[in-house]
Amino acid sequence: MRVQKPKGTVDILPGQSSSWEKVEQILRDFFKQANYQEIRTPSFENYEVFSRSSGETSDVVEKEMYDFNDKGGRHIALRPEGTAGVVRAYVEDKLYAPEMAKPFNVYYIESTFRYERPQAGRQREFHQIGIESFGSSSFLADVETIVLANDLLAKLGVKNYELHINTLGNSQVRQSYHDALVDYFTPLKDRLSDDSKRRLEKNPLRILDSKDEQDKQFLPNAPKIIDYLDQASKNNFNQIIQMLDQLDIHYVIDNDLVRGLDYYSGIIFEFMVEDASLWESATTILGGGRYDHLVEEFDGPATPAVGFGIGEERLMLVLQKQNPGLFTDQGIDFFITNIGEETEIKVVEIARLLRKQGFRVQYDVDQKKLKAQFKKADRVKAKYVITIGAKEIAEGKLNIKRLADGQKIDLLLSDLANMHSVLEHLKD
Amino acid sequence: MRVQKPKGTVDILPGQSSSWEKVEQILRDFFKQANYQEIRTPSFENYEVFSRSSGETSDVVEKEMYDFNDKGGRHIALRPEGTAGVVRAYVEDKLYAPEMAKPFNVYYIESTFRYERPQAGRQREFHQIGIESFGSSSFLADVETIVLANDLLAKLGVKNYELHINTLGNSQVRQSYHDALVDYFTPLKDRLSDDSKRRLEKNPLRILDSKDEQDKQFLPNAPKIIDYLDQASKNNFNQIIQMLDQLDIHYVIDNDLVRGLDYYSGIIFEFMVEDASLWESATTILGGGRYDHLVEEFDGPATPAVGFGIGEERLMLVLQKQNPGLFTDQGIDFFITNIGEETEIKVVEIARLLRKQGFRVQYDVDQKKLKAQFKKADRVKAKYVITIGAKEIAEGKLNIKRLADGQKIDLLLSDLANMHSVLEHLKD
Repeated sequence: MRVQKPKGTVDILPGQSSSWEKVEQILRDFFKQANYQEIRTPSFENYEVFSRSSGETSDVVEKEMYDFNDKGGRHIALRPEGTAGVVRAYVEDKLYAPEMAKPFNVYYIESTFRYERPQAGRQREFHQIGIESFGSSSFLADVETIVLANDLLAKLGVKNYELHINTLGNSQVRQSYHDALVDYFTPLKDRLSDDSKRRLEKNPLRILDSKDEQDKQFLPNAPKIIDYLDQASKNNFNQIIQMLDQLDIHYVIDNDLVRGLDYYSGIIFEFMVEDASLWESATTILGGGRYDHLVEEFDGPATPAVGFGIGEERLMLVLQKQNPGLFTDQGIDFFITNIGEETEIKVVEIARLLRKQGFRVQYDVDQKKLKAQFKKADRVKAKYVITIGAKEIAEGKLNIKRLADGQKIDLLLSDLANMHSVLEHLKD
Repeated sequence: MRVQKPKGTVDILPGQSSSWEKVEQILRDFFKQANYQEIRTPSFENYEVFSRSSGETSDVVEKEMYDFNDKGGRHIALRPEGTAGVVRAYVEDKLYAPEMAKPFNVYYIESTFRYERPQAGRQREFHQIGIESFGSSSFLADVETIVLANDLLAKLGVKNYELHINTLGNSQVRQSYHDALVDYFTPLKDRLSDDSKRRLEKNPLRILDSKDEQDKQFLPNAPKIIDYLDQASKNNFNQIIQMLDQLDIHYVIDNDLVRGLDYYSGIIFEFMVEDASLWESATTILGGGRYDHLVEEFDGPATPAVGFGIGEERLMLVLQKQNPGLFTDQGIDFFITNIGEETEIKVVEIARLLRKQGFRVQYDVDQKKLKAQFKKADRVKAKYVITIGAKEIAEGKLNIKRLADGQKIDLLLSDLANMHSVLEHLKD
């Protein structure tokens, strides 16, 4: 049998996996510090969860959904993004109940799936990280979300990032803007791409997101959302950016920013990274915004909400360039070589003893020749080698060698029970 | 839209999720201490990866595979267990190459899927944890695997567990034993269950696993593997159990143990837990064994291998009873209340400052009345409350209250930059 991984998937192997783990540990600790707790929703949902929330005309739904019929004839989709499942859980599991602390703040780190033509940076299974905050319409909830995004990127060691920010206003604003876009694009309809022709009917806002050259020529003169904002939306937007000024968080107001999903309302934002070694132009690494109507869309009570998401693959790409320290293999503490008869039991006992003290310890299960064992110790980047042979056991003494400088120290078998203090003596 | 989670799936919500995280953190640290590194394979594979490795007649393949046809007409299955994908990666990604340290030791913590009738303890999406070690046929590799399983359960705080152990011998042994089983069951064929009738043709070993009452009556007199073992297999088995004796790891030799998957050869084992508050009889919590032919089955080079797997849902069920400390919510360090005008910026600044020092900090984005804010602080189990108002800002002074005993301490705004030493003063 010669079997390969499915198209568009990857294996994350030892060597890379430890960096993923380190980054995720930083993320988890960071979210917990802001009292965001983890939520885990299923890897798949009923198709409608995604089709209704992302919008029927979104690229996700139109082109990219990884959906299938299960054996019971249900229309199922592997989740394409993190928010819809969380909102479904928020409603179904009644997380809006008065006894739950509000805002209800959660984070997720999960596999996500899109069925699209695999290409550089596009996989059928990829990973997303995000936070969602339900229950506050205060501008402080927006600020908290943006500040967390900013501080998280800083903590991870991302460099040259810039916050782009815009607002989509409330639903009346979106309606007037929608009408203005229809008025503007309708006379141009014949010259638009096929995708945009269809969007003109269903969701003209989406045309502003078009990557099609044919469409792009008409975008600079299209109506701008800023001219349609009501006073309340303007005030809210101004409160947010004033606070960002006070907090010294640099931002760019970007009126063309619309984001790819239907559910946003109010503030939207993206953090973009410039790195000439990776991309020709600034590229979004984190995006989010307010979505005050999505909980109602799932038949839950009216609930304001705001959040952001990060593509983990892209984040890892940036970090590999910008924070290579996260990608160095630290190796293990002790490699225990063992030679001769009757050493097996001792080596296992010592390994257990040292592991219990928190050390990373390996020994040679194959009991190869001593030279081969030292080679293994090098390969697994051991800091110290302990050698156990018949002589060591008979005398109750052994020695530890530090590989970096060859320094050795003798000790009694009984000293192994307190290895941290032994290592103190090796420091110089 | 009223949408529910798909049949057989669950949401892991805040309140539970932190226990999952804690357990997984213990697991990760434990595996790393033994120099097992993480591997992440795709959530789905080509169907053959699982059908060939688990065995065409296994329950997994016959009844439980979560498979479907993707949009490109490929026969895909969501992974039902962890080992097959790892072996596929081992071969495809050439992890057997000489430059890789051997044994090649990995662990995984991942979602797994079975399409079966949902029932208590059976979900369509569940979670598995496991380790695999490729490249050593030494009995020390078996011992290391069993010792790790034993010590891991101890570290997690599992109580009343017992190791059951058996050996399936090498392939000749399995062939003779296979023939003996066919000879024994063939005259009884008409009285066997339909499942077992079919298994008699394809894999009679599987009959020993039958839960069917009709079949069970014939099992006590069925041939025992122990009577068919060759001398080498016996010696190997004896070496392993002698070492377990020396290490004081209690075990029971269980000749009926066969495990549900085709790929095992050599030693197999299960750790069973007795807990009358959970189950009527001892229940398997961890299982594994040697599978020396699976890499070849995937067209890789002959490679001995051994590993184990744990069902995370069942593990959590046991830990909830046996180690409730893992299930207590520790709450946050600081809740910052803020009242009056112009306090918003200060509260955000203080939260950032304290989070940077590693504290868990929340503030009230909704700026409710002080009483409501203190209620929130209680609800999120804050240890301390810091109050910020116009007066505190004007005077550059504020106070911190410890909720457990109401003790207060005054401090300057500038003291917040070194909060760890401030808290030292609060200790008594």
